Amino acid sequence: MSGNKIGKMFNVTTFGSSHGVALGAVVDGCPAGLELSIEDIQSELDKRRPGTSKITTSRGETDQVQVLSGIFQGKTDGTPIAAIVYNKDMDSSAYEPFKNKPRPGHGDFCWISKYGLYDYRGGGRGSGRTTIGQVIGGAVAKKLLALLDIKVVAHVTQIGDIKAQKVNINQIESEIENNPVRCADPKAAREMEELILKVKSEGDSIGGIVEVVILNPPAGLGEPVFDKLDADLAKVLMSIGSVKGVEIGAGFEAAHLTGYGMNDEFYVSENGIKTTTNQAGGILGGISNGMPIMARIAVKPTPSISKFQKTVDLEKMEETEIKIDGRHDPCICPRVTSVAKASVAIILADHVIRGGFINPCKL
Amino acid sequence: MSGNKIGKMFNVTTFGSSHGVALGAVVDGCPAGLELSIEDIQSELDKRRPGTSKITTSRGETDQVQVLSGIFQGKTDGTPIAAIVYNKDMDSSAYEPFKNKPRPGHGDFCWISKYGLYDYRGGGRGSGRTTIGQVIGGAVAKKLLALLDIKVVAHVTQIGDIKAQKVNINQIESEIENNPVRCADPKAAREMEELILKVKSEGDSIGGIVEVVILNPPAGLGEPVFDKLDADLAKVLMSIGSVKGVEIGAGFEAAHLTGYGMNDEFYVSENGIKTTTNQAGGILGGISNGMPIMARIAVKPTPSISKFQKTVDLEKMEETEIKIDGRHDPCICPRVTSVAKASVAIILADHVIRGGFINPCKL
Amino acid sequence: MSGNKIGKMFNVTTFGSSHGVALGAVVDGCPAGLELSIEDIQSELDKRRPGTSKITTSRGETDQVQVLSGIFQGKTDGTPIAAIVYNKDMDSSAYEPFKNKPRPGHGDFCWISKYGLYDYRGGGRGSGRTTIGQVIGGAVAKKLLALLDIKVVAHVTQIGDIKAQKVNINQIESEIENNPVRCADPKAAREMEELILKVKSEGDSIGGIVEVVILNPPAGLGEPVFDKLDADLAKVLMSIGSVKGVEIGAGFEAAHLTGYGMNDEFYVSENGIKTTTNQAGGILGGISNGMPIMARIAVKPTPSISKFQKTVDLEKMEETEIKIDGRHDPCICPRVTSVAKASVAIILADHVIRGGFINPCKL
Amino acid sequence: MSGNKIGKMFNVTTFGSSHGVALGAVVDGCPAGLELSIEDIQSELDKRRPGTSKITTSRGETDQVQVLSGIFQGKTDGTPIAAIVYNKDMDSSAYEPFKNKPRPGHGDFCWISKYGLYDYRGGGRGSGRTTIGQVIGGAVAKKLLALLDIKVVAHVTQIGDIKAQKVNINQIESEIENNPVRCADPKAAREMEELILKVKSEGDSIGGIVEVVILNPPAGLGEPVFDKLDADLAKVLMSIGSVKGVEIGAGFEAAHLTGYGMNDEFYVSENGIKTTTNQAGGILGGISNGMPIMARIAVKPTPSISKFQKTVDLEKMEETEIKIDGRHDPCICPRVTSVAKASVAIILADHVIRGGFINPCKL
Repeated sequence: MSGNKIGKMFNVTTFGSSHGVALGAVVDGCPAGLELSIEDIQSELDKRRPGTSKITTSRGETDQVQVLSGIFQGKTDGTPIAAIVYNKDMDSSAYEPFKNKPRPGHGDFCWISKYGLYDYRGGGRGSGRTTIGQVIGGAVAKKLLALLDIKVVAHVTQIGDIKAQKVNINQIESEIENNPVRCADPKAAREMEELILKVKSEGDSIGGIVEVVILNPPAGLGEPVFDKLDADLAKVLMSIGSVKGVEIGAGFEAAHLTGYGMNDEFYVSENGIKTTTNQAGGILGGISNGMPIMARIAVKPTPSISKFQKTVDLEKMEETEIKIDGRHDPCICPRVTSVAKASVAIILADHVIRGGFINPCKL
Repeated sequence: MSGNKIGKMFNVTTFGSSHGVALGAVVDGCPAGLELSIEDIQSELDKRRPGTSKITTSRGETDQVQVLSGIFQGKTDGTPIAAIVYNKDMDSSAYEPFKNKPRPGHGDFCWISKYGLYDYRGGGRGSGRTTIGQVIGGAVAKKLLALLDIKVVAHVTQIGDIKAQKVNINQIESEIENNPVRCADPKAAREMEELILKVKSEGDSIGGIVEVVILNPPAGLGEPVFDKLDADLAKVLMSIGSVKGVEIGAGFEAAHLTGYGMNDEFYVSENGIKTTTNQAGGILGGISNGMPIMARIAVKPTPSISKFQKTVDLEKMEETEIKIDGRHDPCICPRVTSVAKASVAIILADHVIRGGFINPCKL
Repeated sequence: MSGNKIGKMFNVTTFGSSHGVALGAVVDGCPAGLELSIEDIQSELDKRRPGTSKITTSRGETDQVQVLSGIFQGKTDGTPIAAIVYNKDMDSSAYEPFKNKPRPGHGDFCWISKYGLYDYRGGGRGSGRTTIGQVIGGAVAKKLLALLDIKVVAHVTQIGDIKAQKVNINQIESEIENNPVRCADPKAAREMEELILKVKSEGDSIGGIVEVVILNPPAGLGEPVFDKLDADLAKVLMSIGSVKGVEIGAGFEAAHLTGYGMNDEFYVSENGIKTTTNQAGGILGGISNGMPIMARIAVKPTPSISKFQKTVDLEKMEETEIKIDGRHDPCICPRVTSVAKASVAIILADHVIRGGFINPCKL
Repeated sequence: MSGNKIGKMFNVTTFGSSHGVALGAVVDGCPAGLELSIEDIQSELDKRRPGTSKITTSRGETDQVQVLSGIFQGKTDGTPIAAIVYNKDMDSSAYEPFKNKPRPGHGDFCWISKYGLYDYRGGGRGSGRTTIGQVIGGAVAKKLLALLDIKVVAHVTQIGDIKAQKVNINQIESEIENNPVRCADPKAAREMEELILKVKSEGDSIGGIVEVVILNPPAGLGEPVFDKLDADLAKVLMSIGSVKGVEIGAGFEAAHLTGYGMNDEFYVSENGIKTTTNQAGGILGGISNGMPIMARIAVKPTPSISKFQKTVDLEKMEETEIKIDGRHDPCICPRVTSVAKASVAIILADHVIRGGFINPCKL
């Protein structure tokens, strides 16, 4: 059964694989009347694209988006918005050696087990390139959220053992532009970059943590008991390849706390009722409380490494070794920030409509 | 918009609140021909119920389930299975003081913000009692999973700073019966119990970590790119009240690892292809790989504590203080194990059908 | 896979069978703040119930509804509304003879073929009693529609060859109360009643046509290209047992018409733009145009007749004959009016929310 | 809210409008391992395309399909199948006069009312060209159904007052290739063609009836109580532009029948249990009974006619007249046959998976 759709009212269906003809998304349920240009989508895709820095892969996709439908005279018209990116600069030959030898840490073995056949070229549908779909959907969502002054930002807070200092959440967006690691703490950013280059030189890769912050959310987002806001965020974030954990607010630190330490007390502010602390990360009982929403995701190290690893030759059913050379990010965290933002924006767009903050039909 | 349904093919809709007439669930999409008795459901509800130990609340619900439909001559007949539990032993008076004073750490403020009105009695629909619905659904799911020899177990691995030693995953189920904490490490269990009693005596509560293990899953469960198995597990686990984090396999530890340390190498075993380690926690690329599936959730301390906490009187819009007396678990982790198992079982039942392991129509 | 849910935002899940413990529905997605009483639901169930007239079955259910959840202090509170009716006055013995002998015109054979087992008592889940679920959902929907002054009425326009004269659509509701046939044309009503009694005396039954009219719909309901308003109406109406056809506006008469005869011309009225005729039946391109919505359904004669009919003994796999005695309506049309109204109201409630006419969260 | 998706397990999302960049569909939920070529899809699109006969429009689209994803080495690989057709030969100027003057019988007024803005060029998303999406989805579905030897055929049975004689359902497919009207009765076909040319010469159009027959369906398709097979067929057929009625089996004729005349009696045949007649049209209680499934749809005359019609100038809010010249089919019935077949195939593909006749994951 299919699982390529996310969102109930504002929903995004994605398609395409790494070395197929094209990748893309259909956004259905965006209200009519939203100003939307190709550039709005292209600029988000550009941020997702591997850059020219030393710490990212050198695959040279330009990823030009083509909008097929849904925009009329500069505005959404209530019909589905379809947009695609044709694949170019594909080199499938590099994947031939792994055709029948599942790469450790990758989904190859799982896809073959599940479907019997598997487009092994570039990781197929399991490739990071499929996140082009999320980014397209997120670009539309972002425009919708802007109507409510809601903003989503994401930054790298940890690479290996190097942790960033906490920064003012309003400065994250500007700070991360200053370094290729997309870390808002300049000192940690330099150390992270060094660490990434070090593991790269060793043919290895490294994991990290990305934090996503939702600025200015209204109270009242989330649909208990299953479609709670934190539950839907957890789903969409965990669905990003390489994410192995999601936490909201205090997260796993909550295990160490007492109720008195965990609970956020209420007070009356100029902007209504707020909490003095934000251990809850902006969500209580599955519904936003109007405080900034804080989520963190654990990103595993890129599984493609140029070290020998044991695997199994599926044809011969005997053990063997592989070594993965080629163009791979030694640390995927910086690029995950774009995808995480887009994913979260899609969920938020869905919930602002479901929660009645934006008319589902027209603006 | 509604959010009270989980699962696409095997789906569960729950309803009811803490002090309403009844709580229950409708399970739609269970194949016909599954042997199912009222006792199968009742026995799971009994495990969810607060026990008689010193560390749990003393609310004396008997929670007798009544099956309204869907079973014919001892078997499911393909029609929806509805089951309910009437509320008894309700004492709403204890909640009168908090009618207009949202309790810190609870969803009260969020529900009022969202819906304008709120059944404040016993936490309303945000109460832990609503998990009766999940447990009903989970009881049916468990029977379905048993056909494939899939088993879900859950245990407490941490309370406050006390961490349990790792145990053989096949012994978890028997070990946790030996103590009220549902911890598989007897020594840690004793310390945990002491800690819980200590915070209780201080009018406080304490958080912890619960691990859920899926034994004997087939390879091939999960529907990328959004309905990945880990994504759906993350959603259902995060939707449990008081859960603030979810991790799969190495989880947040992955941030510290290199690719070589994270990747699980493949080998040929008697039972097919397996991995030498299980850092992935049984899921790669969103699809199960046949190894045990390991998930952990961060459970926050019970927000109901008998210490004075600052809040706001919503009628007068002025700050005030409240103190919550009454029947509350000082640590919810032991009871969360039942709910987590049930929730995970529902998702698995959905995915075994979606993945074609069980016929969606009849057995 | 399950198919017991209708509606996307305002959705209704129904359960229960003719001779099981109880039947009911869960309404999820009703906005908070709607005034709703048990009496609102009970009064609709009373209309569905077989009456005391000579032309309906004499099964003496009282069908007392019990609301389990979702109403707080006289209003919906945004949580799921569950309501049930316990089965009473059940006499399963009458169905023993047909246990392995599928009744012609009934779904017995299909259910057995599909699920392998089948609750044959009273038609099981295929019974007309399952429409209690629709009526519960429709009662809630009706209250929601009343906020927009939208009203749904239904009347019998044909029984056998007897056709009613057209009446003013605003008089339908009052006129049909004057006769047990629920026909708005008094003269035809008398003839219909005679015809029904005649076929009853012959141990036979008779079909007919029911028209459903939606008064005062706004323009703009319907979500092309698949969830068009007429498409969703066709689905819900065709899902009523015994319905074999659905038409909107001119319906099958359109086959005979030219474009000039079919098209409705526009003009400017006091109440905005209207059409001079209503061949479209209030829906163009799948979206309501503000004119009254007219739908008609073909209702087949009740299949339970006390004449000998050929069938097959499924155990012996040999042909045999059966004769169905017992309590059966000789013409189901009058009772279908209630179910059709309820079904249409559910779809409309879903579409007024989807179309942004009512806030999905709270009133 | 969005309504551009049909099907639950085998589902199709369509997008695009008449004069936009491209139209297309994403098929999600097709099992892996199905042989599928671009030609399989192209050949179905070719049948949908206006032909060169005198009775169809002369818009010269070639409608070359491009498959973007989901096929690997000649087979479906379990990932979404996206396919598009770029719009060419567009002449939007012809629609300028109707920009603010809704055309009678078209959805123009409804779309403007609903969304506030409307792509008026060529009917926008309401155009018949959007059925390219259904045809793409239907082409995939058809291949899946072929695995079970299920076949869908459609033919014109009535145009205006001219009715075709009944033909053997196994000869429909070959007979309709002999005339541009796609009528299986050669004599009626000739008369229909003459009638169509006559109304065309008068600047008018004409309606008709199309019958869809499903050959060789298994017993057991359909998911009561809402997703009954006839209900889902009614929805998808009514969602086709210009369809105003749907009937199954005896359909509206059932209103005239007694139970004895309507009920189909069972007998034991070589191929299992069958019915002697097929008044039910192959579906009882919402589930297929193994007999051929018979559905008929009422198709209204094309609303675009070159006669003066009254409408309203929406800018000036005053009444005016329009006359629609240009390329339009005087009778849409022949082309509806392709769309109806495709639509029905999609629903059937969904139901064979939901019913467990085909594995949802891989073949």
